[in-house]
Amino acid sequence: MLKEILEQGQRTIDASLERLLPAATVRPDSIHQAMRHSVFAGEGVEELGSALEMLHTYSLIHDDLPALDNDDLRRGKPTCHIVFGEALAILAGDALQTQAYEVLARLKCPAEARVKIIEEIARGTGTVDGMIGGQVKDLEAERHKPDAATLEYIHRSKTGALITSSLVSGGLYANGTHAEIQRLRDFGRSIGLAFQIVDDVLDVTQSSEQLGKTAGKDTASEKATYPSLFGIDESLRQADALVSSGCAALDSFAQRAQTLKELAHFLIQRKK
Amino acid sequence: MLKEILEQGQRTIDASLERLLPAATVRPDSIHQAMRHSVFAGEGVEELGSALEMLHTYSLIHDDLPALDNDDLRRGKPTCHIVFGEALAILAGDALQTQAYEVLARLKCPAEARVKIIEEIARGTGTVDGMIGGQVKDLEAERHKPDAATLEYIHRSKTGALITSSLVSGGLYANGTHAEIQRLRDFGRSIGLAFQIVDDVLDVTQSSEQLGKTAGKDTASEKATYPSLFGIDESLRQADALVSSGCAALDSFAQRAQTLKELAHFLIQRKK
Repeated sequence: MLKEILEQGQRTIDASLERLLPAATVRPDSIHQAMRHSVFAGEGVEELGSALEMLHTYSLIHDDLPALDNDDLRRGKPTCHIVFGEALAILAGDALQTQAYEVLARLKCPAEARVKIIEEIARGTGTVDGMIGGQVKDLEAERHKPDAATLEYIHRSKTGALITSSLVSGGLYANGTHAEIQRLRDFGRSIGLAFQIVDDVLDVTQSSEQLGKTAGKDTASEKATYPSLFGIDESLRQADALVSSGCAALDSFAQRAQTLKELAHFLIQRKK
Repeated sequence: MLKEILEQGQRTIDASLERLLPAATVRPDSIHQAMRHSVFAGEGVEELGSALEMLHTYSLIHDDLPALDNDDLRRGKPTCHIVFGEALAILAGDALQTQAYEVLARLKCPAEARVKIIEEIARGTGTVDGMIGGQVKDLEAERHKPDAATLEYIHRSKTGALITSSLVSGGLYANGTHAEIQRLRDFGRSIGLAFQIVDDVLDVTQSSEQLGKTAGKDTASEKATYPSLFGIDESLRQADALVSSGCAALDSFAQRAQTLKELAHFLIQRKK
C-alpha cells in the first residue's frame, strides 16, 4: 500500500522533473546532461516535490565532490564529478539550486504562499540551523570529534532541516492553518533526526551494493555517528522513539496523516 | 556626481548586506566568515541590491575554484578557497545563493512582484541563456576555440544576463509597466555585453594591481576574447556602439534614466 503510493509518487515526480528540467539537448547540453544524470536516480509531488528533489540532488552532488566527501558512488551510479568532471559537477549543483527557485516562483498557488515556501526552503537549506550549516559542522567534526549534542545538531540541520521544510512547504502549498503547519514541523523535526540515525546504522550494517552508495565510510573515517556513540541497539531505540513522538504530533489530522505515518515507519525499517 | 551616487550606493548596500548576512559569530561561524570575506570586497540598492550582490559573489567564488578558473586573487584579496579551503568555499558559494533567495522572498514589495523577481533572477543566473550557461560554454571554449557568435553568446549569458536581470528586477520592484521593463531589458543586454568586452580589453591593457585580480590571464591561456578576435580598437568601438544603442533604449525615461546612462558610460571608461 505505502509501496504503491511511493511508486506512484516517484512516477509523478519523475514525469514532472522531465518537464521542468531543460532537455539534455538544449545548449549548453553538457550541463543539462550533468543535472539530469544526478536527478534521475531519484526518489520522490509534482512541481514542489520536483524543486525539493533538485535541491536535495544539488546538495548530494556538492557533498560528493573531492574537496568534501570525495565519493565515487551515489544511488548506485557513478557520482556527477566522476562522469562529467569536477567543474561541471560544481556548476550542475549550482544550476539545480537555481532551477529549483525558478520552479518554486512559478508554483500553482497564490504568490503569498509561494514567497513563504521560498523563504521556508531557503532557511531549511541555509547556514543557520539549515542544511549547509549542518554540512559545515560535519566537516569540522572531522577535526574535532563531536559530542552527542553536536552530532544531534549536525543530523537535525544537515538532513532534518530539508525534510522539515519539505513537510512545511507542503502545508503552506495546501493553505494549512498555522497550527497544522506547526504540527508538520514537529513531525519533520522528529523523523528527520530518526532518518539520519537510521542512515548511520545502515552505513555499518549494509553493503555498498545494498545501499547504492559507498558503505562503511563512517567507520573507515572514524566518523562520530549514533552507532559509534550509543551502539546500534540504543540508536535504533532512539529512532523508534522519535518516530513515535513525530507521529503523535500528527494525531489531530486523523486519517489524513496516515500516509505520512506509514512513511515514518518505513524510514526506520528501510534497508537502504 | 556619478562617483558620489555610486559611493553612496555602495555604503547603503554594505550596510544592508551587514544586516542581511548571518553575523560572523553565528555558528557555524567558519561559513559565515567565508561568505562575508568574499561579499565585503563589494561594489554596489538595499535588499534587492544585496541579494544580487550575493548571487554575483557566489558565482565569483565558484568561478575562482581550482576546478574552474583556479584564481588566487579577486577584488584585491586572496580568493575564498585560498583563505578558507576548497570545501568551505564551495559551501560559501552555495550558501550565498540560498541566502539571496531568502532575502528576495522577503522583499518589501507585493508578493506578486517578489515571485516575478525571483523567476527573472533565477533565469538570468540559470543554464538556458543565463549565467551558468555562459560559464559552461566558457569552459568548453577552452577546448574548442569559439567563433565570434559563440563568444558573444558567452559574454551575453555569463555576464550580461545577471546585469539584465538586475535592471529588470529593479523595474519589477518599482512596479514598472511592461514597456518600461522591456526598455530596461534592452539597455541591460547592450551594456552587459559592452561591460564584458571592456573586461576583455582591461585584461590585456592593465596590471593585476590596477585590476585587483589576476591580469593577462586570457592571453596566457590563449583564450578567445574580443581583443584577440577583433583587436583592441575595434573591440572598444563595438563597446561604444553598444552603450550608445543601450542608452537610446532609455530615451523615453528622460531625466529619470540619467544615472543609468552615466553608469553605462562609466562602464566603458573604467580602468578596472
